Amino acid sequence: MSSPFTEIIDDQVKHLGESQLIENIRRWLKECAPPTPFGMGDDTAVLKEPRHNLLTTDSLVYGRHFDDSLSAELAGAKLLKRNLSDIAAMGGQPGVAVLAGFLPSNTSISWIEQFVTGLRECAREWGVLIVGGDLTQTDDFLGFNLTLNGTAARPVLRGASESGDLIWVTGELGGSIHGHHAEFRPRLKEGQYLANEAAVHSMIDVTDGLAKDLPTLLSDGLAAEIDLNAIPLRDQAQQAPHPLAAAFTDGEDYELLFTTSSDWIGDGCLLNWETNFKTRLSCIGRVVTRPNATGQIIDAKTDQPINYGEAYEHFR
Amino acid sequence: MSSPFTEIIDDQVKHLGESQLIENIRRWLKECAPPTPFGMGDDTAVLKEPRHNLLTTDSLVYGRHFDDSLSAELAGAKLLKRNLSDIAAMGGQPGVAVLAGFLPSNTSISWIEQFVTGLRECAREWGVLIVGGDLTQTDDFLGFNLTLNGTAARPVLRGASESGDLIWVTGELGGSIHGHHAEFRPRLKEGQYLANEAAVHSMIDVTDGLAKDLPTLLSDGLAAEIDLNAIPLRDQAQQAPHPLAAAFTDGEDYELLFTTSSDWIGDGCLLNWETNFKTRLSCIGRVVTRPNATGQIIDAKTDQPINYGEAYEHFR
Repeated sequence: MSSPFTEIIDDQVKHLGESQLIENIRRWLKECAPPTPFGMGDDTAVLKEPRHNLLTTDSLVYGRHFDDSLSAELAGAKLLKRNLSDIAAMGGQPGVAVLAGFLPSNTSISWIEQFVTGLRECAREWGVLIVGGDLTQTDDFLGFNLTLNGTAARPVLRGASESGDLIWVTGELGGSIHGHHAEFRPRLKEGQYLANEAAVHSMIDVTDGLAKDLPTLLSDGLAAEIDLNAIPLRDQAQQAPHPLAAAFTDGEDYELLFTTSSDWIGDGCLLNWETNFKTRLSCIGRVVTRPNATGQIIDAKTDQPINYGEAYEHFR
Repeated sequence: MSSPFTEIIDDQVKHLGESQLIENIRRWLKECAPPTPFGMGDDTAVLKEPRHNLLTTDSLVYGRHFDDSLSAELAGAKLLKRNLSDIAAMGGQPGVAVLAGFLPSNTSISWIEQFVTGLRECAREWGVLIVGGDLTQTDDFLGFNLTLNGTAARPVLRGASESGDLIWVTGELGGSIHGHHAEFRPRLKEGQYLANEAAVHSMIDVTDGLAKDLPTLLSDGLAAEIDLNAIPLRDQAQQAPHPLAAAFTDGEDYELLFTTSSDWIGDGCLLNWETNFKTRLSCIGRVVTRPNATGQIIDAKTDQPINYGEAYEHFR
């Protein structure tokens, strides 16, 4: 007998938290988990064969990523958009998807029709085909998983920023729960544009807050110096008790966070951006060398570490 | 407000059953669901771009596909083997996979380690890399989804059998629940061998019983004439109250069911098979023309339709 559940606190996944659990899984997989970017550790995996191909997977669970207050169409679109945002963060072009559903037997057929309709309209907009799937009956759990492939001529990875790079973010941050989490447009066009700019060194989509996502762009010995006044706050974040804390720790922004060489700010780069996009673009700081503080986020004004509390850690 | 659940019986998915629900989803997806084999409707999807690429997804849910009586290692291997069996049924070669987990916070870390170890050893055996994934916290649902890609020089599709074809099945059928469902070896080598034989016209892996899976090989106007004595029964099926009913309606056989031109039985074909494989191979009947009985399974001895009760229909 081998029960997956335990009452021993030290042996429960909530004892580890999500990041450490993922790290453990990578370790347990040994050489079956290739190093990033060919495996876990970036927005999508970059496949060695066929070259330039991407693969990513994301889930959508009732009671966690949506509830009765969200229309079924928006829920269906959100499942695909979560994956599209990962493709966007590689500067990629989406391809085809497979859909897995976990459904209780009292799930409403008309709700599923609306869910699929929302998924379809989003797929149509971005040229995605749904090529297969799997359905499993559950007792009362309702959830979905979608796996999406894509291509990228130059995948923009997370860890490739350099000392002196400027740090940029699209759109606005914080307070996503008040609507943006479902209404956002994945930044695919913006990501593809940025992948074509040689000055763009690293990129991620912000889904867990700056506090958790920004450090992933910083490899050994690098830290981020941030101008707090430059952080673009969403209206709903500005109304929060601590607007900057919302930008640093709220999830589901689905904005692109990227670094560029320092000369990208001149040379008409911003003018070109504005010609192509209405999307707001903010330079919020720069990458600096800090041998003993890898991944730290520093207030440029005070030179002190910024600590708005830990970003949301799943399973805790 | 938009609840996914309903008390109206006619609007519940159990009113439709799985096959009809999948058909509806395909219809709701409109042109975002390409026709088979480039979309839903075969063991895997065959991608147009890149050519010869396959994509498939399958799930594994606690309480449904495994329980405490199965070791965590076998459960982890089973998740991958379910997908490998789909690649085998196309005559394909597996590639890379992404893993999605849905875990309650009291899931045991050591159980997951064993699960991942079982998955890894299976991945290693078949040359599969796990390149990414996603973890989601749940209240009490424990389940996994794995999406696997692959390649096939000549994907062997389901619907390409011809009148006069012989019908073959590997291994034995029925009673899988007593152990085979977790201990089976995916028939990858056999599937690849068969894909190289031009005489092989159509193929599927038997996962829902002959009654449901055999008709998928029969296109318009074709039926299957079966020699009941030739059906290879697993020991555990022979001990069942109705051994043939077990072969027709039990799930999870993960054996290859395929059709060949009638001359494949001569020419040393079986001898070649036996040189390459220890796997049992049985010719169980042939494809016949029946304009008004498409998909029917007929007893060759009595010329009467075989009806061992409906195969298992999920959600009902």
